[in-house]
Amino acid sequence: MSGDRILIHEVVTRDGFQMEPEFIPTERKIELIDRMSLTGLAKIEVTSFVSPKAIPMLADAEAVMAGIQRRPGTRMVALVANARGVERAMATGVDEVVLVVSASESHNRTNVRRSVGASFEGFREIVDMLKGTSIGVAGALATTFGCPFEGFQPIERVLRLVGDYAALGVRSIALADTTGMGNPRQVREIASAARREYPDVDFALHFHNTRGMGLANVLAGLEAGVGRYESSLGGLGGCPYAPGATGNICTEDLVHMLHEMGCETGVDLPALLDASRLLAAIVGHALPGQVVKAGTSRDLHPMPAPAH
Amino acid sequence: MSGDRILIHEVVTRDGFQMEPEFIPTERKIELIDRMSLTGLAKIEVTSFVSPKAIPMLADAEAVMAGIQRRPGTRMVALVANARGVERAMATGVDEVVLVVSASESHNRTNVRRSVGASFEGFREIVDMLKGTSIGVAGALATTFGCPFEGFQPIERVLRLVGDYAALGVRSIALADTTGMGNPRQVREIASAARREYPDVDFALHFHNTRGMGLANVLAGLEAGVGRYESSLGGLGGCPYAPGATGNICTEDLVHMLHEMGCETGVDLPALLDASRLLAAIVGHALPGQVVKAGTSRDLHPMPAPAH
Repeated sequence: MSGDRILIHEVVTRDGFQMEPEFIPTERKIELIDRMSLTGLAKIEVTSFVSPKAIPMLADAEAVMAGIQRRPGTRMVALVANARGVERAMATGVDEVVLVVSASESHNRTNVRRSVGASFEGFREIVDMLKGTSIGVAGALATTFGCPFEGFQPIERVLRLVGDYAALGVRSIALADTTGMGNPRQVREIASAARREYPDVDFALHFHNTRGMGLANVLAGLEAGVGRYESSLGGLGGCPYAPGATGNICTEDLVHMLHEMGCETGVDLPALLDASRLLAAIVGHALPGQVVKAGTSRDLHPMPAPAH
Repeated sequence: MSGDRILIHEVVTRDGFQMEPEFIPTERKIELIDRMSLTGLAKIEVTSFVSPKAIPMLADAEAVMAGIQRRPGTRMVALVANARGVERAMATGVDEVVLVVSASESHNRTNVRRSVGASFEGFREIVDMLKGTSIGVAGALATTFGCPFEGFQPIERVLRLVGDYAALGVRSIALADTTGMGNPRQVREIASAARREYPDVDFALHFHNTRGMGLANVLAGLEAGVGRYESSLGGLGGCPYAPGATGNICTEDLVHMLHEMGCETGVDLPALLDASRLLAAIVGHALPGQVVKAGTSRDLHPMPAPAH
């Protein structure tokens, strides 16, 4: 794995902010995104173009997109749920839209109020709208590694849904462990099978640390040859089914581990740690990230003075 | 890895309690150890026979050893620093004593106030004292994966010190990441090399989650073929050089991950989660463990009722 370039997708302003109880002012969102795009992150999932009633935190999607600085090397992406969302996203000049469907019927129904089949029907319309534009399309497959209502999904079902995305021409797919149920053995199996069956799809893995397995799952993903990971600055986030539990894996802890292992990410870790401190100031509470508290593995300490 | 038996060594009442600011009453220590020994843990590091002035929290070592129930299948072990400690430990009927030396000179000097060479000289006396008894001897090598004062140690030095233990007849050796500096790539390299060079030594790995890499390092250890892991109930502990940082990896999160991966541990996870809740009540504060907050990956949730 040493020497490989691993790409980091930052999701804190979308996935992380959704769990915050208080609205975060638009200008603070812009400030944070501008700070993050300076660090060399490959992608930032800026916001979601969905109904402001469904997610009030992201009601300022247009204003955020209009306010942020664009820098070469960092793609600015946004989640969309339907044609209306795509129109809104296109008007703001996003680099890429992200579609999402769940591997389990019950989670898809809870998340987007339609069947998995109906989601893919809607995606066809979206893909058609984007044809001939420079805007990319990525697909996310939620609950790939377990559904909080149904449990583990058969691998055949996961692979079939990857195939449904691929049939629409979607070549960038994130397999998501939405509530942190996945384990390293299963991650290796599913990621390896997906890469084997769909060699022309570029996979990302989206992990949560809900049960402490987040970075172990990254290691399993690396071993399966996956080179893109989604994470949240500071580990901000949570789990709607487990109050007090953590959510997404922490970006700076992920980048730290990858650098320690000899992998390149192109991310400036000290700048990322500064951005994490800014985030803590913005949300006004402590974050689950460890490296910001402990320092890196390269930070040495003075020996304590001998006792007298 | 599936089907392999992985052994868990619990260190919370020694390594975890040392970081607590308030003395924990002897009867509560006994209550917790009795609860833990019912769960099927292979070893419990009960206490340390060192100077009560050095570690006041463990001044009740004799009383704790005298009060706990002994159960077949769970070895009760204690840390010792010198001949006086061994005499005290022998008098209480421990199953095994644990020696500790650091891979780095500066950490050894800080921890036990002598050189690494002087530590091994002292170990010779201890090993001689235990000859002909039924008491086992294990060795721990602190700062194997990094020293907070000196940084990373050369692998040749680590292997030479393992050899120094082996030359004394110590065949059970824990390689310890004392302040959570190790990364999975390095763990795999060092653990693989140690097993290759010392095939008749039974290795354990002792990890901290100080920078979030704890369970990823366990995965690397499993891949290197190591079958014993040291952890702390609830993840109780800390790092003297990083206030607010976490310490040892969390036993119940470790056991949960291993079970999800298809590894056997012989540990009753629900009983272990109950013990972790007892621990939280004893210390009176929240613990870093995740599974106790989130539930296991097998715990399903009801679908939320549709909105009206």
